Amino acid sequence: MKKGIKMSINVLVPIAHGTEEMEAVIIVDMLRRAGYDVKVAGESSINTCARGIKILPDIHIDDLDEYDSFDAIVIPGGLTGVERLSDSSALEKITKAHFAAGKLIAAVCAAPTLLQDFKIVTSETSVTSHPSVAGKLNQEYYSTEKVVRDNNIITSRGAGTTFDFALAIIEFFSGKAAADKIANDIVYF
Amino acid sequence: MKKGIKMSINVLVPIAHGTEEMEAVIIVDMLRRAGYDVKVAGESSINTCARGIKILPDIHIDDLDEYDSFDAIVIPGGLTGVERLSDSSALEKITKAHFAAGKLIAAVCAAPTLLQDFKIVTSETSVTSHPSVAGKLNQEYYSTEKVVRDNNIITSRGAGTTFDFALAIIEFFSGKAAADKIANDIVYF
Repeated sequence: MKKGIKMSINVLVPIAHGTEEMEAVIIVDMLRRAGYDVKVAGESSINTCARGIKILPDIHIDDLDEYDSFDAIVIPGGLTGVERLSDSSALEKITKAHFAAGKLIAAVCAAPTLLQDFKIVTSETSVTSHPSVAGKLNQEYYSTEKVVRDNNIITSRGAGTTFDFALAIIEFFSGKAAADKIANDIVYF
Repeated sequence: MKKGIKMSINVLVPIAHGTEEMEAVIIVDMLRRAGYDVKVAGESSINTCARGIKILPDIHIDDLDEYDSFDAIVIPGGLTGVERLSDSSALEKITKAHFAAGKLIAAVCAAPTLLQDFKIVTSETSVTSHPSVAGKLNQEYYSTEKVVRDNNIITSRGAGTTFDFALAIIEFFSGKAAADKIANDIVYF
């Protein structure tokens, strides 16, 4: 890739056993519709998601290198999946490094609690999450909006808000017209 | 199972290479949240969906038996996936037999065209579909509502209407309160 020419937006989506499959799949599918290069990194070679859907990843999560470079890391929810991803030191390292470099870090449902565990979401961050884990997050800037952006952190509430979450990420990188086109393509209004 | 005691709702969801993964996964996940026994029947042991997500099925589609009994057959879209599913004689047989027995047949996005190929949707049926395939369907009772029910046929428009589609199926079997509870659980409003 020539310096100064941005060929594509690169996105990392980590999944694990217990990941909420609607959230993972909506994120990956929508961002690929936007033309982004999305890599699914799995805890396992077959990831059995929260409601039993079995998804094969593109790479193993342990093969992530802290020097890998993505434009965004987008983390789906599902309580068990988030707990398992929280235990991944590879994911913690790469997420912290990307946050420090100003890259987009996004999380939906239970996954904002992982960002708090990784000290990316702090008491100063405007944030939302699934209502069931709201009590685990700092309350001062907690919001009940469907999607909340605070600089390079975007959070959202659940499977039912994941289309809006994905569209907000597309708008972040590609603008509102690109997001509107994809919403129209999937008959989302 | 004792006669007269309905233990669970059994649902068949067929997938193929090119199936729209958001639609397939939203259908399966939502119906499992409702407590239904959902069987994913795949064209292949690994189904590479429309945007590259690789999903393992529960059974192979050719292992379906025309005497298998489901309460509903729910077919996701994705143009290539629907074309491939249309070519499955096993799926055609079981879908026609279930329709004739008054079981629920449901299809989203491009999949209503498959129901027309199978002569389940006719010129007398109220139907919707993805806008891009509307021209392939009989127009007399074509609707642009998000979800259309005509007796035991439910159709819907695209990935962006699949939550509403799944909720309509849950309402069909379990009533509005059950559907509302799941919508609330996933923060869909």
